[in-house]
Amino acid sequence: MIIVLKKGATVEQVEEVSTRLTEEGLKVHLSEGVEKTIMGAIGDRMRIEALDLEALPWVEKVVPIMAPYKLVSREFHPADSIIRIGEHEIGGSNVHVMAGPCAVESRAQILETAHAVREAGATFLRGGAFKPRTSPYSFQGLEEEGLRYLAEARAETGLLVITEVIDAQDVSLVADYSDVLQIGARNMQNFILLKAVAKCGKPVLLKRGPSATLEEWMMAAEYIMDGGNYQVMFCERGIRTFESYTRNTLDLSMVPALHALSHLPVIVDPSHGTGRWQLVHPMAKAALAAGADGLIVEVHPHPEKAVSDGKQSLTPETFQGMMADLARLTLALDRKLGE
Amino acid sequence: MIIVLKKGATVEQVEEVSTRLTEEGLKVHLSEGVEKTIMGAIGDRMRIEALDLEALPWVEKVVPIMAPYKLVSREFHPADSIIRIGEHEIGGSNVHVMAGPCAVESRAQILETAHAVREAGATFLRGGAFKPRTSPYSFQGLEEEGLRYLAEARAETGLLVITEVIDAQDVSLVADYSDVLQIGARNMQNFILLKAVAKCGKPVLLKRGPSATLEEWMMAAEYIMDGGNYQVMFCERGIRTFESYTRNTLDLSMVPALHALSHLPVIVDPSHGTGRWQLVHPMAKAALAAGADGLIVEVHPHPEKAVSDGKQSLTPETFQGMMADLARLTLALDRKLGE
Amino acid sequence: MIIVLKKGATVEQVEEVSTRLTEEGLKVHLSEGVEKTIMGAIGDRMRIEALDLEALPWVEKVVPIMAPYKLVSREFHPADSIIRIGEHEIGGSNVHVMAGPCAVESRAQILETAHAVREAGATFLRGGAFKPRTSPYSFQGLEEEGLRYLAEARAETGLLVITEVIDAQDVSLVADYSDVLQIGARNMQNFILLKAVAKCGKPVLLKRGPSATLEEWMMAAEYIMDGGNYQVMFCERGIRTFESYTRNTLDLSMVPALHALSHLPVIVDPSHGTGRWQLVHPMAKAALAAGADGLIVEVHPHPEKAVSDGKQSLTPETFQGMMADLARLTLALDRKLGE
Amino acid sequence: MIIVLKKGATVEQVEEVSTRLTEEGLKVHLSEGVEKTIMGAIGDRMRIEALDLEALPWVEKVVPIMAPYKLVSREFHPADSIIRIGEHEIGGSNVHVMAGPCAVESRAQILETAHAVREAGATFLRGGAFKPRTSPYSFQGLEEEGLRYLAEARAETGLLVITEVIDAQDVSLVADYSDVLQIGARNMQNFILLKAVAKCGKPVLLKRGPSATLEEWMMAAEYIMDGGNYQVMFCERGIRTFESYTRNTLDLSMVPALHALSHLPVIVDPSHGTGRWQLVHPMAKAALAAGADGLIVEVHPHPEKAVSDGKQSLTPETFQGMMADLARLTLALDRKLGE
Repeated sequence: MIIVLKKGATVEQVEEVSTRLTEEGLKVHLSEGVEKTIMGAIGDRMRIEALDLEALPWVEKVVPIMAPYKLVSREFHPADSIIRIGEHEIGGSNVHVMAGPCAVESRAQILETAHAVREAGATFLRGGAFKPRTSPYSFQGLEEEGLRYLAEARAETGLLVITEVIDAQDVSLVADYSDVLQIGARNMQNFILLKAVAKCGKPVLLKRGPSATLEEWMMAAEYIMDGGNYQVMFCERGIRTFESYTRNTLDLSMVPALHALSHLPVIVDPSHGTGRWQLVHPMAKAALAAGADGLIVEVHPHPEKAVSDGKQSLTPETFQGMMADLARLTLALDRKLGE
Repeated sequence: MIIVLKKGATVEQVEEVSTRLTEEGLKVHLSEGVEKTIMGAIGDRMRIEALDLEALPWVEKVVPIMAPYKLVSREFHPADSIIRIGEHEIGGSNVHVMAGPCAVESRAQILETAHAVREAGATFLRGGAFKPRTSPYSFQGLEEEGLRYLAEARAETGLLVITEVIDAQDVSLVADYSDVLQIGARNMQNFILLKAVAKCGKPVLLKRGPSATLEEWMMAAEYIMDGGNYQVMFCERGIRTFESYTRNTLDLSMVPALHALSHLPVIVDPSHGTGRWQLVHPMAKAALAAGADGLIVEVHPHPEKAVSDGKQSLTPETFQGMMADLARLTLALDRKLGE
Repeated sequence: MIIVLKKGATVEQVEEVSTRLTEEGLKVHLSEGVEKTIMGAIGDRMRIEALDLEALPWVEKVVPIMAPYKLVSREFHPADSIIRIGEHEIGGSNVHVMAGPCAVESRAQILETAHAVREAGATFLRGGAFKPRTSPYSFQGLEEEGLRYLAEARAETGLLVITEVIDAQDVSLVADYSDVLQIGARNMQNFILLKAVAKCGKPVLLKRGPSATLEEWMMAAEYIMDGGNYQVMFCERGIRTFESYTRNTLDLSMVPALHALSHLPVIVDPSHGTGRWQLVHPMAKAALAAGADGLIVEVHPHPEKAVSDGKQSLTPETFQGMMADLARLTLALDRKLGE
Repeated sequence: MIIVLKKGATVEQVEEVSTRLTEEGLKVHLSEGVEKTIMGAIGDRMRIEALDLEALPWVEKVVPIMAPYKLVSREFHPADSIIRIGEHEIGGSNVHVMAGPCAVESRAQILETAHAVREAGATFLRGGAFKPRTSPYSFQGLEEEGLRYLAEARAETGLLVITEVIDAQDVSLVADYSDVLQIGARNMQNFILLKAVAKCGKPVLLKRGPSATLEEWMMAAEYIMDGGNYQVMFCERGIRTFESYTRNTLDLSMVPALHALSHLPVIVDPSHGTGRWQLVHPMAKAALAAGADGLIVEVHPHPEKAVSDGKQSLTPETFQGMMADLARLTLALDRKLGE
């Protein structure tokens, strides 16, 4: 942590900062220039931040040097984390595709989709039973009935199930029926929910909040790991910007950035990331080329009848075409699709 | 709702859209141009959106015309809503200032602050007992102990209490100790929590999410009103933009925009909105001049020792100076401070 | 400037950084911690930045401490700069309103508007003769003919004239006809144009680029001052964000921020800042309450016939109502309108 | 264009809108619902926009339906435009890499770089002789001397030259020495400059402005095509968002979006798009997978001594490694690198 003092800070003021830092057991270095006095304090970032030195009138600014995250950092775990789910591994050489409708709408819909995506090469079935919706007048999900249909589809197809949990109270219920719990973008900083999924034994897919910085996102993952659950996957799904042609701006540079800073796998959602089904195929390819460990894609047997997100859903046919293309691409990237 | 068909849409395709709309009981108007066919459908927006016509390959775009909100709209309730809390009214000619520390840290701290802000003219005491924090290693709040201190400060000073609730499970506990429940920015679209506060009898201050559009914010208020609680206040606290000199970009144009579209009161938080205590005073004045019905401001007796947000907290002295200035300003705006 | 070295940097690597800094005549301080080595270099920011130390593989990050601007900073000129134009002063206790149409459309239009805004209390007439337009098919301005109408309006009404210049080649022409040259938002970093206006003898109103940070904006002003022209005014006109209800997000916190960091006056444009005439009046009040030294407002005698920006233009009547209100407000702010 | 009237609009008001539209030769359709009256007008967007109907108090909103661009649209030219430069083609099956330093610093530097990137497979040499710099105190480029070095490098290596032009006055000078003129991001809406490059015979690379929407960017290209120059390439180089880990947010979804809406080629700049050399290689791969027709990449023989952008420059060695990887990737995409 670097502390820059304002021009004209007195010896007593410098001393006071120094004392506070030393009292916290921190090692302090002082650099006095003609114009500015700069102090360096090396030690735990949280303890230094708790001092809130910027509230002192003679402190100009405090610049953090150490990263605030620990468990999610690559320094903590230099090798890539590989998450084993059923007989699949995420974060290794294989790339996994999670596919299915935005919302579970009916038994027939989810079974039809499951068979279709299984055939095309997906290894996970996605589908929301609890739906966070912008409007109170929109369909809010089938809840437990939806979870039962997902479980039935798993039994029939062998696909693993990923589904969203939106309330701490529902975590054990959702965990009973699924293989991966998804934390949606709007809940990335719902800390009560993060602490709850930290205590269930299931892997978690953590979507990036629409205006979350890389650091905030990593800190959200830190909550889950700090709570004891090390099976965390990041999911880039686009951020909110001024550009409105796309629903969100898919920030693929986060894929190599996360791989540099963290050991956890990174999944990309080109469906929410673009909001237009025509862009899903090229952006899915781009995501894999950027190094993504997997994709989560919306597929609906009849997008024009979907209760939500029909505009961004692939049909089983377009999904199959994309998967054939991705299979070829992954080989050129020295990876492999599925399995 | 306007439906624009792609160039070359066939008669059958036009017919299909028309049939779907008519089946939903909607009145359809057709405009055929040389280049484009445009259809207008007048009726309930939600029912039209549920049709998800943009998923049809021959539909170019669907443009909503009607607003998706109802209860929060000024058309629903043409007069300003006035919310009565204790002997105070928010949304009328009086402007109220809610002041206090970011977090309740101790009994002494909250009592000292309460007396100081009461003396300066505040009518509400703010202070967080449950704290949503970016880092799992940061102070998470005193919880119920903090609520007791707030209640004690109310008993001693007569100030009403506003405090944040971060989990649906805690709503009745927090409601027992406080006069207004605050929904924090990160929870603006925590729909489980919105439904829970809709059922408690207490007024709600709904902060804008850091990347929430005006419409999404109004829809979050619609959740609370739709759940039966009509005592909702909006709180503008800044949005996330590329500008990093300020912690957030305080979007004061939302004050007159909300007053035009909705009947609910609007409060402004210049502390989180700027993140720098030096900007709080001028932006508090600007907020009132823009028409805000109240302010929520961070005040800490010793900002440099605050466990959070010390950088943006006023001292009791600077707060008092600001209040004197605001009192004078409100008169020129034909309003009055406090009471 | 703080240089943070990566964990494991060798003695030789530390030495190399140190040597480079010393060769530039900079004083270097070294702080070695258990985890990181931090170096502080005090001296000219530009010379340190030119070293581009972040390109060294063992350097983790370089954090600037000194501001990059000099002439625009309050440290360079502690008192407020007051710009004298004709018999008016901008930046002093009087607040000036610049009003007129977006574009000069005809002699009749500009004369009618000039008389109307003069009567209502404006001291400057605005109007574009050279128009930067998003589309090549839109009206591009009357050019010199428009400048002549502006000059004629000045002669008739005594209003001073502010108008935009969009090309370095036109600077002397525009300066011949006007009292203040406006640099539009899209040209804030047109450095050729900035250097050109630096050489004309006229005051310059520098609009903020739609995605310019505070620092970039100050550096654009630095170009003009460095070129010899000290008569620069900032103009906040909104930034581009995700919020689309307003045309831009008017960032009023820049007013007190600029007043803290710089000695130059600050004008606010609530017309472009909101894009909706209904929001202009409340945001004009908010701007003055935040400390603005003036306003620039679009007024058109027949907004519904305007060739551009009719949606955000006031009529002479609504403008007059606003001015009466502002006159009263400025008194409560210990300032005065016009003169 | 759809015109939505406010609730309660009178018959006369509807009539007035109708008359204005008809006077412009537009065909009008009227849809009267219980709550709103909606009018559709089909015809030239520019003529309708010029009416500025939103300025009428009884008009609620005007929604554009037709795209404002013509020449750049795929409807105007359904096949991909292929731009022939020397013996190369951009926009066809071959993918081209343009490489070189941010700024031309010396004869030795540019010749060394040119040979290195030629050997690695680049077909174009990039390098700035005129530099738009945020600070007036930074290096502003070698100007004509720099252009001469570029031309010398071309003569020695056979590489084609792309370089930036920042002022309309310099267009013919820059065109004399180079093969492609680059319009920088800050100048995307410098309409004087766009009109000037429209008149030179050389191809133009049009970088996206840091806060330009897709539509504004296409309209900037429309200026160049409308001025007679059909050899335009788009260049995505990242947009400004709240995320500060990367210098900009590289918006790769623009690649397939532009390919859908326009016939012009799309180039991607992963160097400015990320601002970190470590991210250039993965994002270059992602760009090609998304369908980019080429890349423009910063390479410097000694990044740590670069006068600008050293942090985002590849060395000749890392560039060579990337090119080998890209050659393999392009085959899997049914394209080919260079030639």
